[in-house]
Amino acid sequence: MTQIQNIQQLRQQVDYIDDELLQLLKKRGNIVQQIAQIKQKEKLPIQDIEREQQKLTKLVNQHIEPYSKEQIVSLYRLILNQSIDLQNSINGASSDTNSLKVYRTHSQHNTKVRVGDVVFGEEPVYIFGPCAVEDEQQMDTVANVMSQKGLKIIRGGAYKPRTSPYDFQGLGVRGLEILKSVGEKYNLATISEVVDASQVEVAANYLDMFQVGARNMQNFQLLKAIGRTNKPVLLKRGLSATVDEFLHAAEYILNEGNPNVVLCERGIRTYERATRNTLDISSVPIIKRLSHLPIIVDITHSTGRKDIMQEIAKASIAVGSHGLMCEVHPNPPIALSDKNQQLNIDEFKSLYDVIC
Amino acid sequence: MTQIQNIQQLRQQVDYIDDELLQLLKKRGNIVQQIAQIKQKEKLPIQDIEREQQKLTKLVNQHIEPYSKEQIVSLYRLILNQSIDLQNSINGASSDTNSLKVYRTHSQHNTKVRVGDVVFGEEPVYIFGPCAVEDEQQMDTVANVMSQKGLKIIRGGAYKPRTSPYDFQGLGVRGLEILKSVGEKYNLATISEVVDASQVEVAANYLDMFQVGARNMQNFQLLKAIGRTNKPVLLKRGLSATVDEFLHAAEYILNEGNPNVVLCERGIRTYERATRNTLDISSVPIIKRLSHLPIIVDITHSTGRKDIMQEIAKASIAVGSHGLMCEVHPNPPIALSDKNQQLNIDEFKSLYDVIC
Amino acid sequence: MTQIQNIQQLRQQVDYIDDELLQLLKKRGNIVQQIAQIKQKEKLPIQDIEREQQKLTKLVNQHIEPYSKEQIVSLYRLILNQSIDLQNSINGASSDTNSLKVYRTHSQHNTKVRVGDVVFGEEPVYIFGPCAVEDEQQMDTVANVMSQKGLKIIRGGAYKPRTSPYDFQGLGVRGLEILKSVGEKYNLATISEVVDASQVEVAANYLDMFQVGARNMQNFQLLKAIGRTNKPVLLKRGLSATVDEFLHAAEYILNEGNPNVVLCERGIRTYERATRNTLDISSVPIIKRLSHLPIIVDITHSTGRKDIMQEIAKASIAVGSHGLMCEVHPNPPIALSDKNQQLNIDEFKSLYDVIC
Amino acid sequence: MTQIQNIQQLRQQVDYIDDELLQLLKKRGNIVQQIAQIKQKEKLPIQDIEREQQKLTKLVNQHIEPYSKEQIVSLYRLILNQSIDLQNSINGASSDTNSLKVYRTHSQHNTKVRVGDVVFGEEPVYIFGPCAVEDEQQMDTVANVMSQKGLKIIRGGAYKPRTSPYDFQGLGVRGLEILKSVGEKYNLATISEVVDASQVEVAANYLDMFQVGARNMQNFQLLKAIGRTNKPVLLKRGLSATVDEFLHAAEYILNEGNPNVVLCERGIRTYERATRNTLDISSVPIIKRLSHLPIIVDITHSTGRKDIMQEIAKASIAVGSHGLMCEVHPNPPIALSDKNQQLNIDEFKSLYDVIC
Repeated sequence: MTQIQNIQQLRQQVDYIDDELLQLLKKRGNIVQQIAQIKQKEKLPIQDIEREQQKLTKLVNQHIEPYSKEQIVSLYRLILNQSIDLQNSINGASSDTNSLKVYRTHSQHNTKVRVGDVVFGEEPVYIFGPCAVEDEQQMDTVANVMSQKGLKIIRGGAYKPRTSPYDFQGLGVRGLEILKSVGEKYNLATISEVVDASQVEVAANYLDMFQVGARNMQNFQLLKAIGRTNKPVLLKRGLSATVDEFLHAAEYILNEGNPNVVLCERGIRTYERATRNTLDISSVPIIKRLSHLPIIVDITHSTGRKDIMQEIAKASIAVGSHGLMCEVHPNPPIALSDKNQQLNIDEFKSLYDVIC
Repeated sequence: MTQIQNIQQLRQQVDYIDDELLQLLKKRGNIVQQIAQIKQKEKLPIQDIEREQQKLTKLVNQHIEPYSKEQIVSLYRLILNQSIDLQNSINGASSDTNSLKVYRTHSQHNTKVRVGDVVFGEEPVYIFGPCAVEDEQQMDTVANVMSQKGLKIIRGGAYKPRTSPYDFQGLGVRGLEILKSVGEKYNLATISEVVDASQVEVAANYLDMFQVGARNMQNFQLLKAIGRTNKPVLLKRGLSATVDEFLHAAEYILNEGNPNVVLCERGIRTYERATRNTLDISSVPIIKRLSHLPIIVDITHSTGRKDIMQEIAKASIAVGSHGLMCEVHPNPPIALSDKNQQLNIDEFKSLYDVIC
Repeated sequence: MTQIQNIQQLRQQVDYIDDELLQLLKKRGNIVQQIAQIKQKEKLPIQDIEREQQKLTKLVNQHIEPYSKEQIVSLYRLILNQSIDLQNSINGASSDTNSLKVYRTHSQHNTKVRVGDVVFGEEPVYIFGPCAVEDEQQMDTVANVMSQKGLKIIRGGAYKPRTSPYDFQGLGVRGLEILKSVGEKYNLATISEVVDASQVEVAANYLDMFQVGARNMQNFQLLKAIGRTNKPVLLKRGLSATVDEFLHAAEYILNEGNPNVVLCERGIRTYERATRNTLDISSVPIIKRLSHLPIIVDITHSTGRKDIMQEIAKASIAVGSHGLMCEVHPNPPIALSDKNQQLNIDEFKSLYDVIC
Repeated sequence: MTQIQNIQQLRQQVDYIDDELLQLLKKRGNIVQQIAQIKQKEKLPIQDIEREQQKLTKLVNQHIEPYSKEQIVSLYRLILNQSIDLQNSINGASSDTNSLKVYRTHSQHNTKVRVGDVVFGEEPVYIFGPCAVEDEQQMDTVANVMSQKGLKIIRGGAYKPRTSPYDFQGLGVRGLEILKSVGEKYNLATISEVVDASQVEVAANYLDMFQVGARNMQNFQLLKAIGRTNKPVLLKRGLSATVDEFLHAAEYILNEGNPNVVLCERGIRTYERATRNTLDISSVPIIKRLSHLPIIVDITHSTGRKDIMQEIAKASIAVGSHGLMCEVHPNPPIALSDKNQQLNIDEFKSLYDVIC
């Protein structure tokens, strides 16, 4: 018999063993599903970490040659993990992580957040307005134009978190008053950022929707304070937050009892400087798969460039975003903040005509 | 006179000075434009760094109180830079950088790259096909389906750059043969990656279009070798290349005489791991503003996730991409590379129906 | 006359204008300083945003050819900002970048921050202690060992900012009590994180030094609240903060009147996952060149790996760090947070023997 | 019988199956080792991709409920990969991650790489020299000073990979000649970068050590060409390579038969711009734990700042680096590349006195 024939014969033995392995695995799979059904009836947890550890310990203490301990552990760990999956598929759930309140597994339908006359989670919602409330004239000009276009919500910052303490910090309560006043005059819902838990109560009197900015995505005291109200909130993704951290931040709000959370992708910090941040557009469909919450895109901060705003707006809607946020100022060159990236009224109208 | 009145009076003086400053600046602007016209006629360079340095040195050596040297330098540097801009605006160019051959300033119309029956730079071009050419059966299956859908170009890797030397490295010339053979059978143009300058000559006999992968974006010998052919090339953005570095890499090819370059955004490396890379979708409109070259999006590598591929495809087209590239394999679970991210035939058909 | 002569003649005119501009600017500078002196006497704010806006609006509405609106606005904004600087320099304050209070230009000697028996800014200070205060026994064990080694300051978290609301959030005031009690027993100064402005007043009763964590580096309300006390604070660099943003965050504290700030490099978020964060060791000498504040390195969070802690400790001291922070727990596997990266007592002793 | 008892009974069945699985796997392992011995004798390749594909195809086409195709494929792929490992362990080779040739598990002692009179892997080795070889005078000046200081190796680039095709690309072979000539005159070993596989043979005649630059870390043709020589090579980490990818790149060289590889950490690309790259100093002790290869730090490119070079040099040595590389030029302001970051002769002497 030649060596090649020898190999072929040995390979037949391997094939036979592989079939046996498959039969055993199927049998094992069926049994774990039976166990899962009992656990479900008895409301017992699927995973039993202690039993898994015992099993692995017992296995590797046997004579396992020619395999190494690491090899056997990795094989059985895969088998155990697949068992968990098989059991979860019985239960309709899939793993521990998946029991966050922000996850789809927690809610059968998509969350819709009503703010004044707009509803996040249905047709795209467009939020325009200046970076900061500067004075009544400025706000009136913007609100008037927006109202003419049929828009129903306006933004404007009263508390501005700024890198330097010497930059314009916002008008505070006076800014909220101006915002509320133009909102009432033009029948626009209002949204503005709060930056500290202590502001929530006062600001609630002026605003229809809170905004939590990127820098405060993990300001958990602020998230909890907002969670204890019932007012809608737009939660922006942190400067370098993962999708997972972003959803956990939202969980802080839901966990306090406020379900009215709208997420906002606003770009992440990367090495690239052609844009102010890098718009992580993939995060929108990923988050929509994971969560029942609405998600919109801030096209101003994610790019910092007015010249590509129309294209980015179209891409964001195409990818499934529930809306857009974009800064508009009557006279950007003299704006007190973000003067290079705010649209002027004409640019706003062009963008509006393209997307709305 | 009260102090407030005092301030008002002083402010009037400031206003008067500011008007004088404006008149002087305008006068200055007009003179530099006259200089620019002469320079243009005489074909002299706009910027004269030596003169600028002399001027600044002279200025700061004067009595400049109450200003500091730094303040005066920064003011005059701004004035000098604006002069350069004013002069360039006369010439229709704007700065040194802007004379790269890849830039719009170099070409009055958009580059169109014809490969077989497709033209990059007009209607979106869709490139499908497996990560790697594995055997004839595999390629025939994919090519057949693509041909039925009316597609005109197919991809498949013959030289695979892999992180580990023990991973499948591609079939080499045998892979090119298989690719060429199915291309001819189904009337599909062919594209495949080359990874070394020495392969260019041979591969040119089999391929309709070269691909340069992300790892080789700055393999300048390879770029120059391709630049010396006239064959179309798809140049992928490097893993952590800036937009500027990407365009300079393309310049290596154009500078050798080959104008048939198509760019490909394929995601950049960031901290986020929900996707394999982070699709930098803003790079598409930015590059279209800067360059006359076509640009497409590789939706497979930029996400590494099949579940969001339809949304990402739609966003890429909406943002203005000249096409898409996407991996398709008849049986992804047994693929020799990228098995988790290649679409199977049914997934391909669904995607095709959504976008094409 | 040749064209070159033409250019020379025009350039003489430009030089003449530039001299006139300089004279006007000096005149302007002297007037704004007079205004500043009046404002100072009358306790009026230096910056008058409304007036600046009016001035810019008026300017850009004039005939300004050949300049564009953007050019004129950016020129005058620079002039206005320099005026603010000139006025502030009268007052001893300044918003000029080169004169932030954190910068060397502002202070002739290095800041030293005394906390109990240790002084940051002289010999390296070593801060050890558990991630979180869990109970009295745990804190007593650690404090006892540290005291035996002659250490003089201990850390322990009472308010834990955690990604998930379902993770251990710290013992709150009870944790501060335990920390204070072991501190007194073993004569150790105490440091612990505060995460909201509202906690500052209470926590001040228990702590010798505040810590502001990476997530709160731009929680400006918190920074300002701490700035209004005189208690030392350890300010950690944000997860993806630049050196510049880091120093501006410290400026918020100094600007409120509290000079006792110690900075802490704790790694930044990058694509690399071999470590929890990427220790940006270059930031230490860079910050020491820019700022008079002491800076230490958190070797636990910047690496997340116990196996390289000794080498990283040695490198941090060699690079010039004013100290180290490192987590130690009597029984890391059962720790309520950070269980994989805290040193146990023996590992602490080995590290101590190597570095101290 | 209670439900709990039911679960226990089912679990016993699972345990019994798991024991059977183990026996089958051991039997399988023994057979594949027999096959490996025959393959070894017959000089057949270990991996037979075609057979693996057939086996997987056959398996997933069976009735495999309750498992999914993906689950069965991933299980058997793991089994097949472990078979390859078992067969390789017979042969003394292995593709198992834990037995890459670069890993400590593969070699009992640290690799030492001798280049002329220096040995990498013992006392720190200091490599100085200009970014690029520009002319004989320049090289002679630097070599002379280095020789006076007792240094034994000099660097200088002859092939310069540059972002723009219009930047200085190096003198090529003429540069190698100059480098070799000053090396002989001053008894200095020479190191210089090669950027394409085709250069390796020629360059070998001039150099004592190759350098592979960051841009070419995954130029696998170049790595393999160098791997087929026996000449020492300094392999730089890619711009955004992980530690894992870095080591796999080195594996390409070792796998071709050349063990004389020295690794070089040179900073990674991050969002921070205070430095040219971010020195990932933790990579040094991590790589020393994983690999038996020497590793040095390029303090010039990792920082791009001359002002912190002494501190970074000290930190690199303290962290355990086997050496440093640093650019020195007789007249940096007129250097043809990297003019801002090269040390002049006096700065070199100061650095030398601090570290050597």
